[in-house]
Amino acid sequence: MRMTPAARRDALRELLRAAELEALLVTDLVNVRYLSGFTGSNAALLVPADGEPGTRLATDGRYTTQAAAEAPDVPLVIERACDRALVAAAGADGIRRLGFESGHVTVDAHAALLEVAADTTGAGLKLCRASGLVQRLREVKDEAEIEALRAACAAADAALADLIAAGGLRPGRTERDVAAELEQRMRQHGADGPSFDTIVAAGANSAIPHHQPTGAVLAAGDLVKMDFGALLAGYHSDMTRTVVLGAPADWQRELYGLVAEAQAAGRAALAVGVEVASVDAAARNVIADGGRGAEFSHGLGHGVGLEIHEAPALSATGAGTLVSGMAVTVEPGVYLAGRGGVRIEDTLVVRPDGAELLTLTGKELLAL
Amino acid sequence: MRMTPAARRDALRELLRAAELEALLVTDLVNVRYLSGFTGSNAALLVPADGEPGTRLATDGRYTTQAAAEAPDVPLVIERACDRALVAAAGADGIRRLGFESGHVTVDAHAALLEVAADTTGAGLKLCRASGLVQRLREVKDEAEIEALRAACAAADAALADLIAAGGLRPGRTERDVAAELEQRMRQHGADGPSFDTIVAAGANSAIPHHQPTGAVLAAGDLVKMDFGALLAGYHSDMTRTVVLGAPADWQRELYGLVAEAQAAGRAALAVGVEVASVDAAARNVIADGGRGAEFSHGLGHGVGLEIHEAPALSATGAGTLVSGMAVTVEPGVYLAGRGGVRIEDTLVVRPDGAELLTLTGKELLAL
Repeated sequence: MRMTPAARRDALRELLRAAELEALLVTDLVNVRYLSGFTGSNAALLVPADGEPGTRLATDGRYTTQAAAEAPDVPLVIERACDRALVAAAGADGIRRLGFESGHVTVDAHAALLEVAADTTGAGLKLCRASGLVQRLREVKDEAEIEALRAACAAADAALADLIAAGGLRPGRTERDVAAELEQRMRQHGADGPSFDTIVAAGANSAIPHHQPTGAVLAAGDLVKMDFGALLAGYHSDMTRTVVLGAPADWQRELYGLVAEAQAAGRAALAVGVEVASVDAAARNVIADGGRGAEFSHGLGHGVGLEIHEAPALSATGAGTLVSGMAVTVEPGVYLAGRGGVRIEDTLVVRPDGAELLTLTGKELLAL
Repeated sequence: MRMTPAARRDALRELLRAAELEALLVTDLVNVRYLSGFTGSNAALLVPADGEPGTRLATDGRYTTQAAAEAPDVPLVIERACDRALVAAAGADGIRRLGFESGHVTVDAHAALLEVAADTTGAGLKLCRASGLVQRLREVKDEAEIEALRAACAAADAALADLIAAGGLRPGRTERDVAAELEQRMRQHGADGPSFDTIVAAGANSAIPHHQPTGAVLAAGDLVKMDFGALLAGYHSDMTRTVVLGAPADWQRELYGLVAEAQAAGRAALAVGVEVASVDAAARNVIADGGRGAEFSHGLGHGVGLEIHEAPALSATGAGTLVSGMAVTVEPGVYLAGRGGVRIEDTLVVRPDGAELLTLTGKELLAL
């Protein structure tokens, strides 16, 4: 199913009515984009609960043309202070219970909105805290979104394949060189850029879960962990592969095997209706059984889409169950301080009959 | 003068006492970095007004080692919910008027802090809105910061020089190719990455002030506008140059001359004690006198440092005067819709005897 922005606004309306809100003021720009198509850097969207009339997109004069092109079905309000303009508009429309994104609006911005609310229609408008409503919708991707994710994952797959084919993973290069080449090759394959700061961690650095690439030089015998992704049409891919430079030592082979087994267990646990915490447990149990539970120090994965990290969280403390169309990462890792670490990560989509793999790079241990 | 984080905290204490706050809870990560040296992605800092005792840096277990190394002089609190941990600590210390960064803390986060405050010491702790205090300190750079800015500007200068020397600006290439090459060359010259999304805009696209690079192909006769910068050691450079591919047409030469004259006037107006609005006016008047006032549709410039845009704003509505050590951009532009635009931008530091230019690339009209 492909959803238009209008269909997404319709889906939001159901959540608004359930929350007894008459409208939502959307100020998180990712949510504005999701609900309207508009990608500018200053915007807000008003979505009434009772139907499309009264829906408005606010942005400033720099974006008049772009907003009309990207969101042709939503009336525009041109005003620099977008959020305030839409609170005034809601007041003029007789809205009384207006939700705002309280996980996004700052205390100062809220104070400014309260002033506008007090000024309109005899203070009949009440600003109500409403958090995560659009994020909940965004958890489940439509087919157009999954296609965008697939294209982003393909750019990352192709970049890594090119890097390896060109001999780019070899002793003597720096972590920073490898990271820059991965990013450049993703661009050559259509990416607008990396989806987050590329991680390349060699040798003992691979034991640091979120190591930033440095001038450290790759050496024979090193584990090299690469966690990277492509940003394409607003969607983020996320993949980690760990390779060895030269013949793997026994401990490297064992460590890799354990993480690969855990990752396969996590992927196999992805199914409609499954608790997110039990997906985390499926992978974590493998690592705990291997005696490395303490060295797997983070959650198993996260939702991915218009943001690199979004709902749902696949972690021991995560709540909720998987729904068809959710896009998530599965990324167990074991980190042996001072020696090295292995992480293996895929991006997948939950489907009625299991999980569809979007990152297609192989996961056998590569010895380069 | 080089300021240690401890000296910066001392300077903040004066502002706190003037605002009648007993302490500040710092949650904006850029401000945490400025005041402590810590660069992790989850942190908060408590700065009491009456002296260094009671100062604490909170972060989570991923960063124990890094925080101790980067902020050796500040006691650590290891806790995932950093802001709440420090409100509890402030309560335990008997703090009664605790400022928080109300331009940064969300309504939901504030509600969580209020709960902690109510739970501590018989609700004697009051959370007070406090915005922009650290930002005000950050306007004036110390010599170590200026050195970092100079290095970031040098990486951008060198990248553009290399790009031109290699013939990288020529008909047939796409905007996206040129942007990627500029970013890659900045990295080769030591940048950690671009300081913002590189703008390359050719032909009619150059009339769009913040055009994102596309697959549009550079053609003979095009104005090509490049607005880019390097991120290096946390500091951002910012520079715009506009060139012509081939012999400039008369209108291009005239347009360029007008913007160059305005930019020189803006630079010449930078001096200690001058109103920021009058710097904007110095450049704007030149363009207005040239009959293009309506086509210069943005402010003249902005502060630059740990963020690409920070205080002070050099605009017609900006308030305040220039102080020695402020780092700012001067970037007038004139945009002729459908034809092309010219912007020329430097990063400079206000000095007692004028302004020091950090972006050293020449500003004569380059015909390539």
